[in-house]
Amino acid sequence: MSRPVVTFLTDYGPGSEYAGALHAVVAAACPEADRLDLAHDVPRGDIRMGALLLARLAPMLPEAIHVAVVDPGVGTDRRGVAVALESGGALVGPDNGLLGPAARLLGPRAAALLEPPPDAPATFHGRDVFAPAAARLAAGEEVEALDPAIDPASLASPELPPARVRPGWLEAPAVGVDRFGNVQLLAGPGDLAAAAFARGDRIWAATGERRHPATVARAFGDVARKALMVYLDSHDMVALAVNDGSAAARVGVAPGDTVTLARWELA
Amino acid sequence: MSRPVVTFLTDYGPGSEYAGALHAVVAAACPEADRLDLAHDVPRGDIRMGALLLARLAPMLPEAIHVAVVDPGVGTDRRGVAVALESGGALVGPDNGLLGPAARLLGPRAAALLEPPPDAPATFHGRDVFAPAAARLAAGEEVEALDPAIDPASLASPELPPARVRPGWLEAPAVGVDRFGNVQLLAGPGDLAAAAFARGDRIWAATGERRHPATVARAFGDVARKALMVYLDSHDMVALAVNDGSAAARVGVAPGDTVTLARWELA
Amino acid sequence: MSRPVVTFLTDYGPGSEYAGALHAVVAAACPEADRLDLAHDVPRGDIRMGALLLARLAPMLPEAIHVAVVDPGVGTDRRGVAVALESGGALVGPDNGLLGPAARLLGPRAAALLEPPPDAPATFHGRDVFAPAAARLAAGEEVEALDPAIDPASLASPELPPARVRPGWLEAPAVGVDRFGNVQLLAGPGDLAAAAFARGDRIWAATGERRHPATVARAFGDVARKALMVYLDSHDMVALAVNDGSAAARVGVAPGDTVTLARWELA
Repeated sequence: MSRPVVTFLTDYGPGSEYAGALHAVVAAACPEADRLDLAHDVPRGDIRMGALLLARLAPMLPEAIHVAVVDPGVGTDRRGVAVALESGGALVGPDNGLLGPAARLLGPRAAALLEPPPDAPATFHGRDVFAPAAARLAAGEEVEALDPAIDPASLASPELPPARVRPGWLEAPAVGVDRFGNVQLLAGPGDLAAAAFARGDRIWAATGERRHPATVARAFGDVARKALMVYLDSHDMVALAVNDGSAAARVGVAPGDTVTLARWELA
Repeated sequence: MSRPVVTFLTDYGPGSEYAGALHAVVAAACPEADRLDLAHDVPRGDIRMGALLLARLAPMLPEAIHVAVVDPGVGTDRRGVAVALESGGALVGPDNGLLGPAARLLGPRAAALLEPPPDAPATFHGRDVFAPAAARLAAGEEVEALDPAIDPASLASPELPPARVRPGWLEAPAVGVDRFGNVQLLAGPGDLAAAAFARGDRIWAATGERRHPATVARAFGDVARKALMVYLDSHDMVALAVNDGSAAARVGVAPGDTVTLARWELA
Repeated sequence: MSRPVVTFLTDYGPGSEYAGALHAVVAAACPEADRLDLAHDVPRGDIRMGALLLARLAPMLPEAIHVAVVDPGVGTDRRGVAVALESGGALVGPDNGLLGPAARLLGPRAAALLEPPPDAPATFHGRDVFAPAAARLAAGEEVEALDPAIDPASLASPELPPARVRPGWLEAPAVGVDRFGNVQLLAGPGDLAAAAFARGDRIWAATGERRHPATVARAFGDVARKALMVYLDSHDMVALAVNDGSAAARVGVAPGDTVTLARWELA
């Protein structure tokens, strides 16, 4: 790394004092670091969504120090960790599943336990534990030099149940709803292929009894305004969207709900 | 440019993973760039508002590479473009009207078509097309060297209908409602002068039947708490505000609505 | 300072064009500055909350130039000021109380009046007065060189009434509600001690008639899911939180409300 990069991914809220405090800690301890906000709008406490986002975004900057904090268990005995990556860079955050998928993708090379200072408040380890550790790593310290070392293979990962698929039928949990009301399912291109859904197919989507007509599409322009579409989103995940509207509102989906997609003839 | 500046203006939402991805692309491809968020809260798909904001903000940094993405037509055949500016710097984004007003202000010197990579998803050209192009320009490539070149005079511009004005009467569309409930109209100082509205005048504002008393003012302190005022805002546009309240709620205005301002004696 | 740091704390809203304009002004006038967002989600016009946040966050970067704008009186005769600090760095913003607590903490060494340019709009001194002044200071100008000088002891401070406390009883205003629904009271560790509330104590919290059972705790993990807790938050202020829920909604608190905490036996 020439100029170290430190990124932040949290559920603290955009523009919040909590995000500001992370920046301030790193700027004070490692002024030469380039600080970068990956996301601050992870739904509160949604470790799974945070883990998926981190696994998407961290590989874009493999040599960065990534601070991730979605930490409903802060102050309990869940571990805080720093993980050195084969790809260079490191992950820093709570070991509650948040770091697992990104670590697996980027290769965990070594890991160390981060213990809070004895007098630190129990509720803001982002500021008091994780950002300071990230600043030290950005300034050139190695995870391998941190003490105590832990087994990098012991990192927690969130439960990511596979989609249930058969030809003409796909069932998967909604993992995210974005600002646009787009709904992302925990299912990928392989699942879409196994369901044999092809561009232009007319299918339905439902979370309960009510079935909503949808079209398998590639882009918003493929469907009429206000029409519901099913597509592979920009992260290669099966998603629902309404062209110029909210799929979450249309179908009645909240994160965690199971969504069913099926052909009409299978109704 | 000594250190290149890359700015972002989108409707992705503050703190969103989408904004984070733009930063990550540019940081990875052009680490020396100074990245700057101009705005990420443009109302979803509101090309006109995005175009007005870009035309306001881009001239503050004339030598920067400005990435603007408000792109409801992503994945359709709307063009993606990079535009070199007489003032230095460039605009990068969809050619759907978003770049037109800023380009006209700053002088379009040359333009090139940006084609998505053949295997790119159809829904995230910000990450896959525009941010990579901006990083290349920030790293020193010239728009003139991009292929294929297009006519910089062919850039689309949004429809910006002139205000309808006569002495004592002004009618214009609301183009924006900000976080404070301030309502910005598509009308400027010339329109205010043509309507002969002067500081201290008592007028009314309406979107429908109901007329709301308002005072022509210069600053919030000119009117009582909770009073409605009409003023030239900090971008020299005619605007409505309620001192310590929301003009949008008071008058019942949503972006796109036509707002009428008139003297009482003309009722 | 090697590389100057300029921070921003406003009620402009995250990702807003107003925050973007502050960045653009500073980037244009002082390209070498490291710009850092401390917070942009201060509740609109809430000078007291802004002042408390600034006093928390500014000491983390004592040598920075801090631009703070929560300015309901913009355009009236409230003063705009720049304040040089004993700790290095400076505060820049309206003299409406916003800067007082941070200045007192960091030691006001000198101060100068900032007058708006004669032709500036009356509503955006952040862009037109404060950010330009911050850029000049970041570029090496001294507050002492600005004209006219004013008495640094004359800075306004917000009213911060002390908590009312007796053993088993604490009454204090709610100063902030964060994204999580956590409620921060204007009371500190000394007040908690004077009330003799100890970890594990069962107490109640109320804003009106209805009393809500709460537990004095140290971390979210100390109480059951959905349980209300009273704790010293990460800024050493007495706060209410619901584990995986909103204390503001549970107890019915809005900023400014008086919250009572008391032992059941004192009911």
